[in-house]
Amino acid sequence: MRESLVQALISLLGSERVLTAIEDLIPYGFDGTATFKATPGAVVFPNTTEEVSACVRLANEAGIPVVTRGSGTGLSGGSVPTDQALVICLVQMDRILSVDPRNLTLRAQAGVITAKLDETAAEHGLFYPPDPGSLRISTIGGNVAENSGGLRGLKYGVTRNYVMGMEVVLPDGRIVSLGNACVKDVAGYSMKDLFVGSEGTLGIVTEVLLKLLPRPLARRTLLATFDRMEDAAETVSAIIAARIIPCTLEFLDRITIGCVEDYAKIGLPTDCEAILLMETDGHPAAVEDEANRMVEIARTHGAREVQIAQDEQEALKLASARRSAFSALARVRPTTILEDITVPRSALAELVTFIAATATRHGLLVGTFGHMGDGNLHPTFLTDERDEEEMQRVHLALEAIVEKTLSLGGTITGEHGVGLAKKPWLKQQLGDASFELMRTVKHALDPHNRLNPGKIFD
Amino acid sequence: MRESLVQALISLLGSERVLTAIEDLIPYGFDGTATFKATPGAVVFPNTTEEVSACVRLANEAGIPVVTRGSGTGLSGGSVPTDQALVICLVQMDRILSVDPRNLTLRAQAGVITAKLDETAAEHGLFYPPDPGSLRISTIGGNVAENSGGLRGLKYGVTRNYVMGMEVVLPDGRIVSLGNACVKDVAGYSMKDLFVGSEGTLGIVTEVLLKLLPRPLARRTLLATFDRMEDAAETVSAIIAARIIPCTLEFLDRITIGCVEDYAKIGLPTDCEAILLMETDGHPAAVEDEANRMVEIARTHGAREVQIAQDEQEALKLASARRSAFSALARVRPTTILEDITVPRSALAELVTFIAATATRHGLLVGTFGHMGDGNLHPTFLTDERDEEEMQRVHLALEAIVEKTLSLGGTITGEHGVGLAKKPWLKQQLGDASFELMRTVKHALDPHNRLNPGKIFD
Repeated sequence: MRESLVQALISLLGSERVLTAIEDLIPYGFDGTATFKATPGAVVFPNTTEEVSACVRLANEAGIPVVTRGSGTGLSGGSVPTDQALVICLVQMDRILSVDPRNLTLRAQAGVITAKLDETAAEHGLFYPPDPGSLRISTIGGNVAENSGGLRGLKYGVTRNYVMGMEVVLPDGRIVSLGNACVKDVAGYSMKDLFVGSEGTLGIVTEVLLKLLPRPLARRTLLATFDRMEDAAETVSAIIAARIIPCTLEFLDRITIGCVEDYAKIGLPTDCEAILLMETDGHPAAVEDEANRMVEIARTHGAREVQIAQDEQEALKLASARRSAFSALARVRPTTILEDITVPRSALAELVTFIAATATRHGLLVGTFGHMGDGNLHPTFLTDERDEEEMQRVHLALEAIVEKTLSLGGTITGEHGVGLAKKPWLKQQLGDASFELMRTVKHALDPHNRLNPGKIFD
Repeated sequence: MRESLVQALISLLGSERVLTAIEDLIPYGFDGTATFKATPGAVVFPNTTEEVSACVRLANEAGIPVVTRGSGTGLSGGSVPTDQALVICLVQMDRILSVDPRNLTLRAQAGVITAKLDETAAEHGLFYPPDPGSLRISTIGGNVAENSGGLRGLKYGVTRNYVMGMEVVLPDGRIVSLGNACVKDVAGYSMKDLFVGSEGTLGIVTEVLLKLLPRPLARRTLLATFDRMEDAAETVSAIIAARIIPCTLEFLDRITIGCVEDYAKIGLPTDCEAILLMETDGHPAAVEDEANRMVEIARTHGAREVQIAQDEQEALKLASARRSAFSALARVRPTTILEDITVPRSALAELVTFIAATATRHGLLVGTFGHMGDGNLHPTFLTDERDEEEMQRVHLALEAIVEKTLSLGGTITGEHGVGLAKKPWLKQQLGDASFELMRTVKHALDPHNRLNPGKIFD
């Protein structure tokens, strides 16, 4: 990176907030995928929106691209820099600016850790529902950029549903404030909805105004084991048909169960085909009744056993089966490739069966877990990237699974984003006209392709 | 309109679906505001997305603008044509295409009457929550274009929260399909969210895929009367602080109560300052408990009386007090000007007081009702547009109320849209940078300004 730019950044931020030494840059060259890597030209740590804006303007003058980053827990390569880019890392913008219990809102800088949002809300009897798997390390800015989901999507929606407003630095360095604390607002286009999920390619979200809910008064956690995966899927359908919308309906397949039990020793039966983790929350009387009915529904649909957590500690223990799934799978073999496909809920059993058959056909080890209520599955390939022949089989299997997903009316990514990982399939899912429409928006808002170039599309 | 274009439209649709006689055009020259009027060049009634596309292409060739229209119940002039425009009226695209109870979705053409959506959902034990005041005549296409709200916004959100996908005809006539039946989807920018609320200026939504919910098993309706408006506002705050999110928290002021009682003879006390209509729905046990607690909260916050509907018929009677508010006000004087301002909930009492004082100061009759849980108020000016002097006072009062709304962090429109009515204030609310960002999107998607020109911005 040119010395004049480095000096200008140091003048702006001070030398301790500008990294340029190669050994300092390496940790900012990859994300949670670990398969995509590059080396940025410099990494800066602004503390304010104005500093972000000034950094963008300096990068523009020097003609180098800007890539925004939080904790780097993304799972699609979205925050992996292009070589020699200026990485703007927002982790120092980590202040919760206000909580407003009367209007049920919380204002935070982009670098606040996701889990801190709900912890802060809880101090006021309030609730921030989105809970992506990485919530203890991910930042809200990253969640907004990817429109992160989580385990409570079916009942509570995703990050988008909680973003009421934001401060954004545009590609030319201008700062705009979008949205407000009004529950309803139709004054012009919903620009904030365009920035949510835009993966850092249209602007840099530096501050967010989030919607909170009253904290549910009660919660019940259940864990059901099944001898047949189809019975788990039918249980999910029957629960929804009974007009119950649980906050969580999570699924683990046999391979995942085995890995989790090896890893966490929870006492799961390793000879069953499927586990369903179910949670209902809300009014105590409703929760009690719904939990009882869910037990009944699971039993009549072939559950081998249904455990009901008797207290918060037992609930956490049951939930840990699901929470530890990815870590448990990741330790089995050197390379873990985590998929994020989603289909309409009715097609879920067919897709799970297809994934298992595809893994068998290609001689691969694939553990599948995910959000059954959302139709969002994370088939996880346990492989070794040094074995070229095996990796070829992995790619064939991935290809087949994505094709199947699209043929079922599904999406290539439910909550991880396109980034670099899903670029090859985006046009196929969207169709030419819809794909071109997105590019038109990108060109209009970032005509010189300055922000996160090469992500989502080329 | 040029004869060659008229002939081409007739060749495409048949003469009975193309109106050009002046007496046939007049009903398509205004909307629910009745203050904005123009005469289109022709009105066409396509039956399919392909026909809409063909009409757009013909208008483009002839160089005339296109304005899309449903039932014309809009309240911001959004569907009022520009003079000599081609009006594409979608009321004949009125088919519900499918209901999918397993995936909780419904697919409909844009011309389906809003009320029919929930009626159809109900046949399957399902629920389409958005219920704008005009739901018995408005179309879902118009609701999507305006991102319509309704009486259940606090708990259930607005139209945007239920749009999963859509077919759109772009300004150049291309057809794009956006979104899908997946509960989660982050494959690229959320283009559907850009079209929701874009008031027909970016594309023509011809078909929508809507999300449904399981139908709530129970509902309770309450009506509380107050001697002080502040007590009604405090009751709303206290209910939310008690972690209850009712589906409805509607407010009528003294003038509105008087007009409703004159009109509908419901037996409302005309000497009270405020009425609060409250509904809670969901699990029967939760509903029972929440209704009791809401009665208690209203009483401890100074309610003079609280009525609890004992059955569905009584509930409808109580709700009719709110449902008939606009009609009841509209018959008092020749001209009705309906505002749609929204503030953060905590600022609501201050705004209601300000509106009443402003009306008194300018010697005007203003009835205020609205969605208290959403901070969304509809102060309604009862006036006579033939009286120029009075209209000047109306405009001064409107100006003052909008300024006050913006100073409280509010929005100029909560659910009616910008259209022509709110154009003068949009830039002031958004700020220059945010306003320019919206124009950039408009120019990028509709570079020749073909769709609904002059709405939202010039």
